[in-house]
Amino acid sequence: MKGNAIVGQSGGPTSAINSTLSGVIRGVASNNQIEKLYGMINGIEGFLNGKIADISYLFDNEEELNLLESTPSCALGSCRKRLPSYTEDKQFYESLFNLFEKYNIRYFFYIGGNDSMDTVFKISEYSKIYGYKIVAVGVPKTVDNDLIITDHTPGFGSAAKFIATTIQEIACDTACYLCDAITIVEIMGRDAGWLTAAAGLPKYFGHNGADLIYLPEVYFDNEKFITTLKNLLLKKPNILVAISEGIRYSNGMYVGENNQNGATDVFGHKYLAGSGKTLEKLVKEKIGCKVRSIELSLPQRCEAHIASNTDISESIEIGKYAVKCAINSENGKMAVFKRKNSKKYEIEFDCEDIGKIANKVKFVPKDFINNEENYVTDKCMEYIAPLIQGERNIKYENGVPVHFKLRQQ
Amino acid sequence: MKGNAIVGQSGGPTSAINSTLSGVIRGVASNNQIEKLYGMINGIEGFLNGKIADISYLFDNEEELNLLESTPSCALGSCRKRLPSYTEDKQFYESLFNLFEKYNIRYFFYIGGNDSMDTVFKISEYSKIYGYKIVAVGVPKTVDNDLIITDHTPGFGSAAKFIATTIQEIACDTACYLCDAITIVEIMGRDAGWLTAAAGLPKYFGHNGADLIYLPEVYFDNEKFITTLKNLLLKKPNILVAISEGIRYSNGMYVGENNQNGATDVFGHKYLAGSGKTLEKLVKEKIGCKVRSIELSLPQRCEAHIASNTDISESIEIGKYAVKCAINSENGKMAVFKRKNSKKYEIEFDCEDIGKIANKVKFVPKDFINNEENYVTDKCMEYIAPLIQGERNIKYENGVPVHFKLRQQ
Repeated sequence: MKGNAIVGQSGGPTSAINSTLSGVIRGVASNNQIEKLYGMINGIEGFLNGKIADISYLFDNEEELNLLESTPSCALGSCRKRLPSYTEDKQFYESLFNLFEKYNIRYFFYIGGNDSMDTVFKISEYSKIYGYKIVAVGVPKTVDNDLIITDHTPGFGSAAKFIATTIQEIACDTACYLCDAITIVEIMGRDAGWLTAAAGLPKYFGHNGADLIYLPEVYFDNEKFITTLKNLLLKKPNILVAISEGIRYSNGMYVGENNQNGATDVFGHKYLAGSGKTLEKLVKEKIGCKVRSIELSLPQRCEAHIASNTDISESIEIGKYAVKCAINSENGKMAVFKRKNSKKYEIEFDCEDIGKIANKVKFVPKDFINNEENYVTDKCMEYIAPLIQGERNIKYENGVPVHFKLRQQ
Repeated sequence: MKGNAIVGQSGGPTSAINSTLSGVIRGVASNNQIEKLYGMINGIEGFLNGKIADISYLFDNEEELNLLESTPSCALGSCRKRLPSYTEDKQFYESLFNLFEKYNIRYFFYIGGNDSMDTVFKISEYSKIYGYKIVAVGVPKTVDNDLIITDHTPGFGSAAKFIATTIQEIACDTACYLCDAITIVEIMGRDAGWLTAAAGLPKYFGHNGADLIYLPEVYFDNEKFITTLKNLLLKKPNILVAISEGIRYSNGMYVGENNQNGATDVFGHKYLAGSGKTLEKLVKEKIGCKVRSIELSLPQRCEAHIASNTDISESIEIGKYAVKCAINSENGKMAVFKRKNSKKYEIEFDCEDIGKIANKVKFVPKDFINNEENYVTDKCMEYIAPLIQGERNIKYENGVPVHFKLRQQ
């Protein structure tokens, strides 16, 4: 089915989402079914407002593609838009598909997280039901690693590598004093504790690291936490605690909820942050020693200078694979990683129905968390470790990384 | 004057303080005046409690020294101890000098910031007045770059490189959405804005970067800040603001003061942090758009994986130079950098009386700040840029950096 293709990026940025874009560009460039590749500027939202760029100029432009693969965030811009249901707002879909027709688009690639996969699902369903020749394929990305079916998500490995390295460096820093001190590092993860679990990697490899790790998968208990800290302080003066932003009490309330204004995003998710600050105050009150909380915040998802080479390479490959899926008319599918059952870490690619994936959450399983529910198991480390392997050869000029810029059109 | 030497690290860690330690080790190893080199464990405080290690085993151990130079924080441990005046507590100095005698120590090297230089000054004065043969030499370190006389301080360049890179990466991240959003990054610096000024480097080199920069050297004005933001929002949706933790109002009150509990450290400095959170609330109230504050916190001073090669090389060299000063009996001196008056950046070493340096602060000068007092000038960038040049070849194993560990004795 000859025609043009369009690619968009959506949701929160990562250090790898541009690598997947590069993979899609590379895949399209090497395929004679597709003529032009367009980019949605600011995702589906920008596209609906006519913001589109011809990015075919990047075909076979090795230098620019390499830069793109080292650049964090979304080179095409992003959006957070939840599409209406097509039974409720058919008009919306008619406008959208008219735009697809206008640019002779046959293939639609959308790189994003859970909420973005919902977009791909709706477009593919509409296309099927109303007989359009649009093939919509999703490509996953999320630092949170919380999509089901795929072994892991592009972007997670780089964020995990940044977290592991930073935890190790912070542990070096806090270990240098003799006085009792507790340092609490708050890590991204609303519902799933995958990124926080990565804080266990430095100790797993024999370095300074986190002493305690709390994930949202288990209920947090203030009293148990303070008792654990007091016991640990009898053994060592410096304690490093890693917590997920999303840890919550058994009554369902987020630990950080009191520090927020109750606002929600367009998907109805509560804005979280502040569990570290809450626990800092608790420790000050109940133990009284030196205590500091650190929120790793945005750098977790954009520190591309320390991206995982495994993550970046896989992110490129899954972008290429998505093009193959589209050519095979796999409408409404998402490209996924499957981990081979081999001794050495190896993956293969597959594609799965988005309907099975969107709006579901993959949690850290029970056997990845220790019995005391305050650390991760070796099994968990064996799962994450391969994803942070390898360093990128980042191009620096004048002491700072060189980043890709989209050509103005 | 034959004898042994001792070296200690003190004050807040940096990514370069171990490189200076390595420089001292290298300097001592190549000098036949000094037999053994001891390390104070946890600075002067640990030493007074008998914590000392023979680190002569590191002489000519290239592999270990290279690792040491890539390891953040203080391999010997640190302390924050203010020495008493010798007129008030002669007993204290007698105990200390007895310990020096016990280990036949003739040379004392102390690597630290402003408060640590006060320690070197007092020990050198006591040594002179009471006729001891101890030569005490200070080697500067501080991410804050706020020591006078020296052109800059070891550790500053690496912190500045991390800040510049992180600001550039955060700017990539925040630029990807279309909605009005203000991101406030809080950077270390109680009195001097050197580190915050480094946030200007990405834009200076043509990349995404900070739009506004506020230093503690100029009074902060809430109303002017909100007006500036509102005007800027008419031109672009995403605004990135870099502020020093130490910004204060014209009445002398720190912007972040209300968020703290008024506690002070042993030197009487107020614990600061929270100016970002304060301004986040202000923007939410006065403008109402999406706003986020990010405190870069400890990673600024310990992200050794992105250390500046210029900083690390100079930090090693100044350690070596301090040994030369000691051999030349420069008691009570601190090794300093002098920037040559050449077109290309070049430095030379010198040593200066610590009495002239300790307890004073070098501020960012007026001509480094723009007329609107909300950004830095090209002259400021020309001063900082050479200090962040070059990347280190960091040894990674299993996806995380390999760090030095002191041999247990």
